[in-house]
Amino acid sequence: MSRILFALTLAIVAAASSPAAGREEPLPSWVDGPTKRAILEFVGRVSDEAGPGFVPVADRIAVFDNDGTLWCEQPVYVQAVFIRDRVRALAERHPGWRETPPYSAVLDGDRDALAALGEKGVAELVSATHAGMTVEEFRRIAEDWIALAEHPRFDRPYTGCVYQPMLELLGYLRSHGFKTFIVSGGGVEFMRPWTGPVYGIPPEQVVGSTIRTAYREVDGRAELVRLPEIDFIDDKAGKPVGIGRHIGRRPIAAFGNSDGDYEMLRYATEGPGPRLGLIVHHTDADREYAYDRDSPVGRLDRALDEAADRGWVVADMARDWARVFPPPSSADARPPGEAGVPATPTGPIRPEMP
Amino acid sequence: MSRILFALTLAIVAAASSPAAGREEPLPSWVDGPTKRAILEFVGRVSDEAGPGFVPVADRIAVFDNDGTLWCEQPVYVQAVFIRDRVRALAERHPGWRETPPYSAVLDGDRDALAALGEKGVAELVSATHAGMTVEEFRRIAEDWIALAEHPRFDRPYTGCVYQPMLELLGYLRSHGFKTFIVSGGGVEFMRPWTGPVYGIPPEQVVGSTIRTAYREVDGRAELVRLPEIDFIDDKAGKPVGIGRHIGRRPIAAFGNSDGDYEMLRYATEGPGPRLGLIVHHTDADREYAYDRDSPVGRLDRALDEAADRGWVVADMARDWARVFPPPSSADARPPGEAGVPATPTGPIRPEMP
Repeated sequence: MSRILFALTLAIVAAASSPAAGREEPLPSWVDGPTKRAILEFVGRVSDEAGPGFVPVADRIAVFDNDGTLWCEQPVYVQAVFIRDRVRALAERHPGWRETPPYSAVLDGDRDALAALGEKGVAELVSATHAGMTVEEFRRIAEDWIALAEHPRFDRPYTGCVYQPMLELLGYLRSHGFKTFIVSGGGVEFMRPWTGPVYGIPPEQVVGSTIRTAYREVDGRAELVRLPEIDFIDDKAGKPVGIGRHIGRRPIAAFGNSDGDYEMLRYATEGPGPRLGLIVHHTDADREYAYDRDSPVGRLDRALDEAADRGWVVADMARDWARVFPPPSSADARPPGEAGVPATPTGPIRPEMP
Repeated sequence: MSRILFALTLAIVAAASSPAAGREEPLPSWVDGPTKRAILEFVGRVSDEAGPGFVPVADRIAVFDNDGTLWCEQPVYVQAVFIRDRVRALAERHPGWRETPPYSAVLDGDRDALAALGEKGVAELVSATHAGMTVEEFRRIAEDWIALAEHPRFDRPYTGCVYQPMLELLGYLRSHGFKTFIVSGGGVEFMRPWTGPVYGIPPEQVVGSTIRTAYREVDGRAELVRLPEIDFIDDKAGKPVGIGRHIGRRPIAAFGNSDGDYEMLRYATEGPGPRLGLIVHHTDADREYAYDRDSPVGRLDRALDEAADRGWVVADMARDWARVFPPPSSADARPPGEAGVPATPTGPIRPEMP
């Protein structure tokens, strides 16, 4: 009898001391340490119904920047490559572009001229390449492009240059009742075709920059037509505005990597109850890139300076991530998605309720 | 042996001939007839995996107008009553309003002056009553108001003047994998506090008219502040624009009741595959109201004329609805909600996955 009791006690101790007893270890690509612990503790607090930090499922809203937070934004934003390829493709119909800025800068690959474009030049390029068709036509253009385009350094599709630890984080949050949103400076219709299969995030949970659209009859059919005019820039102070308009609640968790996310991080973390703000700090030139204060893309300065005071967690890529990218073309690396995530040609998705 | 077979056969026949075998009869407040049949057939077609009309869950998007489609909009829009009450409350701080249009028209209850306000006057009233506070402060104002305000004729809260058949329809669609959205000309933040408990629709699935907001530091805290400027009118041709921006897909079903829904109905129903457009026609002066072509509120003219040609179903309230409103203060009348629907003071909600 005492031997049975002893064996039973051993079993109970073993079960109690293993946090992953009976299920997979969460966040396997995150190195054990203060960063991973901060995430687990936050999720544990908001999910503990008996605890003082409990947050009802309805309020478990998490927002993620995209460029540099969920996927690689170096050496240039992926959407900038898309714009270049669109300008090249459209230049056949616009022979004058070869001599006309800002198109000439793109066609010549003139880095100095491109760096000096300014907001007006960028807006003109966006208007010329992203407008003049229905939203459904544009979606197909973006979908076709992303299916073929490859990262210049990593020899894999851009959608393979997403961060495995962040995919695991998306899935982990969703498995604890969170609804996950992208809140990006990128164009919303550039992202929507692939956020479902890649991140498990359906189109209606993608908030981004927009150009104006209008309802029109095209060949007798009701269509939405994209107009050559910027409507909304979902960056910096625009991110909380986009969150308010689209989500209608203050998120309790925000994930970013640059000063473009500063206001969003503040908005999410300056509410009552438990809050999590996390900054992905790119410190790993070997496996990805190392950049912060002086980078023209993804500049991280003020947000880094104030992180400690504001209680934001800084994830140091070199130190905190056991791996950066998913195994090549591994569908299993993708996080389980939310209900209503579209299947697209770029890969299978395992829909799962949050 | 043959008796056992006979009994078994009887049981099988009984089970097969009852469409509701093993579960509740769907849409009990809809009278059996062509309208109800059209709804059931549409949902059956898109859910039949083996059939030619099958639509994956990810694309089962249904959009609902609010005023006159989900709740009563007569004798005036509910939000107009809210504006009146806000003007009255704020008039104490603005003694000049008593002599100044458009405020004087509201304070005097001058119907002719109110009818002649025009877009500019309405925009001024909205700006004066809906701006100048944080979004969270405004949400509490709307929440407090809706908890107490009552319909002048039906002696119940406005949130009790919702249509029982439409609540059942929302729940029925969700039980078949649909994601349900409100797409209303009303102010989005006026609706969001109560769409969860009343309709089972979370804030992020409410699309509506917006005023501009800005990110500001208020007493050192990050806030969204409402500015006295109209940002977007989600009505008529604006509805498809709001759908594109917010949902990012063409819905396969749309429900409306007025010409303000005409473009949304066309946009939803002019895509490939099965589509359902349905118009609630107010024909029941006894139980609710009877109005269409000549009504200043909820005018239904062109959409009604073209309904037959465009294949839209017209739900005749007097003929098609067995009951109009839910039993008084019955929480059970509410449809099961979607995941992530907030609980609010106005009543319990039973969250359920779609």
